[in-house]
Amino acid sequence: MKIARSLQSLKPSYIREILAAAKAPHMISLAGGLPAEDTFPMHILAPIMTQLARLPSLFQYGPTQGYGPLLAYCDQHFAYQPTHTSLITTGSQQGLDLIARAYLDAGDAIVMEAPSYLGALQVFELAQARILPVAQTSTGPDLTQLEAYFAKHSPKLFYAVPDFHNPTGVCWSHATREHVATLCQRYGVVLLEDAPYRELRFSGESLPMVSELCPEQAVVLRSFSKYVSPGMRVGVITGPERFICPLITLKQAADLHSSVPMQALLLETLMYSDFPQHLQAIRTLYQVRYQVLTGALAEQLPQCAATPIDGGMFVWLTLPRCDVEQLAAHLLQQGVAVVPGSVFYPADVDAPPCCAVRLNFTHAEPDTLVEGVSRMADVFAHIQE
Amino acid sequence: MKIARSLQSLKPSYIREILAAAKAPHMISLAGGLPAEDTFPMHILAPIMTQLARLPSLFQYGPTQGYGPLLAYCDQHFAYQPTHTSLITTGSQQGLDLIARAYLDAGDAIVMEAPSYLGALQVFELAQARILPVAQTSTGPDLTQLEAYFAKHSPKLFYAVPDFHNPTGVCWSHATREHVATLCQRYGVVLLEDAPYRELRFSGESLPMVSELCPEQAVVLRSFSKYVSPGMRVGVITGPERFICPLITLKQAADLHSSVPMQALLLETLMYSDFPQHLQAIRTLYQVRYQVLTGALAEQLPQCAATPIDGGMFVWLTLPRCDVEQLAAHLLQQGVAVVPGSVFYPADVDAPPCCAVRLNFTHAEPDTLVEGVSRMADVFAHIQE
Repeated sequence: MKIARSLQSLKPSYIREILAAAKAPHMISLAGGLPAEDTFPMHILAPIMTQLARLPSLFQYGPTQGYGPLLAYCDQHFAYQPTHTSLITTGSQQGLDLIARAYLDAGDAIVMEAPSYLGALQVFELAQARILPVAQTSTGPDLTQLEAYFAKHSPKLFYAVPDFHNPTGVCWSHATREHVATLCQRYGVVLLEDAPYRELRFSGESLPMVSELCPEQAVVLRSFSKYVSPGMRVGVITGPERFICPLITLKQAADLHSSVPMQALLLETLMYSDFPQHLQAIRTLYQVRYQVLTGALAEQLPQCAATPIDGGMFVWLTLPRCDVEQLAAHLLQQGVAVVPGSVFYPADVDAPPCCAVRLNFTHAEPDTLVEGVSRMADVFAHIQE
Repeated sequence: MKIARSLQSLKPSYIREILAAAKAPHMISLAGGLPAEDTFPMHILAPIMTQLARLPSLFQYGPTQGYGPLLAYCDQHFAYQPTHTSLITTGSQQGLDLIARAYLDAGDAIVMEAPSYLGALQVFELAQARILPVAQTSTGPDLTQLEAYFAKHSPKLFYAVPDFHNPTGVCWSHATREHVATLCQRYGVVLLEDAPYRELRFSGESLPMVSELCPEQAVVLRSFSKYVSPGMRVGVITGPERFICPLITLKQAADLHSSVPMQALLLETLMYSDFPQHLQAIRTLYQVRYQVLTGALAEQLPQCAATPIDGGMFVWLTLPRCDVEQLAAHLLQQGVAVVPGSVFYPADVDAPPCCAVRLNFTHAEPDTLVEGVSRMADVFAHIQE
């Protein structure tokens, strides 16, 4: 049985492949985007799970749009206008996929930051979209290039991660946020704001979401995977009803609805009185790990440059010119897994503008982070000999 | 933002719409495909939920293919050959959607029984497949028509529900199963065997799955929604590796993976020592409700004919000639929700061969079933006046 045309160019995620390799004994993985397991709020989840197991109604078929009380919470916390609504998804990844399926025909133009989240690249390549990669500066996308794309190609969507970007960790400046919102409104481009890391700010001042500045021209993907639990697979899309309603119809066909017990568990966790303290503890933990990693990098790999960040899960490490995929393979042999920066670019964009690797600092313990950097330094020393 | 072409003809599920209407006070719903909530094994689920809440690893990202121990269970119980494998999905509906996306280009031919499961119709219409509807007899599909389709149109797939078909309740005879398996092998058509009701047999003798008779030419969709819990959203696709592997890659993009705590909960439930007794109790409960419904129908609506069944969740009631959609609307006004048979046919198939409604007997209590039939009888008497 021959596979469909749209699937013929879809590659398995490099990261999910490397994560499999990274499970070998004694391997240090800085590759995945995994939260630390000791941040999962088991002390909150456990009593809730016991309570939910007394409610048979949660185990029945549920509404496609989502579990009513969780939708009400989303309306209250995430909707900018009374005409906005939400759709609960099987993780934020499903939100991306539903949007691409509902709105993109083959050949439709969309703009993405380059580099960008690999799961979004997969989804848009699967939709056979024409991807226009906008270069990234230290304050966000290159605004001149972005406007030129908007003016020339009339893209349907601009997919962006303005807070603690994956893979670079860049957080857009306030001025960039305002400028992008204005451009989206002026050119009628819908902003798809992906915000999985927004709650993980550990320094600097919080900035408005870009979608707040153009609420009728934006759809927001929110994830709870980075500060509650990724294994539960609950995400939410919020935006104007006219954008969300077709997604609800599509989700009926895609999986009927997401797990109701998991939606109820998420809601009760978010509403738990001590949840804000829990979130603050995660931020502090990750700030310490970030400082440990960048301290070790500065000491042991002074020839490399880590882009400074105020939150998120990743450090983008720029290296002296090298074949970054060969380097990553070499590092893997020496017991440390990293993701070569080249995989975060669309397939048909040649020469990435820099030679970099993405390092995760949230999953490994501090001692392990230091040991990982030591192994990297050994490999670098060997290469430079 | 204009929606994609493939979505432009997708209609919201009539059944999910009617289910919303069926929630009005005093409404008796025989419309949905809902299991009785008192069949959810809460006495089994509750202690397992409490145990799982002590395992943080279940709340981490998991493998796309599924939770390892559940996959091992599926290999042991569902794989026909060592070269067969499984993929855990967000409900069996996602399995259908992944198969359609992975294997069907617009215009590809597939065969479906007519009438057929509405969720499958949605998925195949979304994939813009060319649907060839094979008529149904009391022992399964019309084999002459099926072979003619296979020979003339080289369809990629034959989608079928051989055990207690939705909506008709028909269970294929042994001879039909053998004949269909032979045809699939002879013409190189992959059988997509959807088996959500197979465990709900309450009379007659169990027959082999059709896929057992052509294991290299079949993919099986299994659901746990009808005898564990639909709200959990866990299903499984099993078949030859060459068919399953592209689905795993696609699922990465679709939702990364299904909820790990729900997969673990399902596994522990299936393995619980008393689970077989629980399953037997469901069968007995549903047999009683089936007998109550058909008894009331025979008494109060002798002009209608209920197709006899040995299991499943639905009675297919053939009526004297009438406008069945108008009748269903009329019944809804009088406080009883049923699904008109016409909705189970592909959009471009005109005149369904019979005038029928689908009645669910698993969700309502016996007294309610009887009252529902009384309301139907009142409406019929009124129409015939």
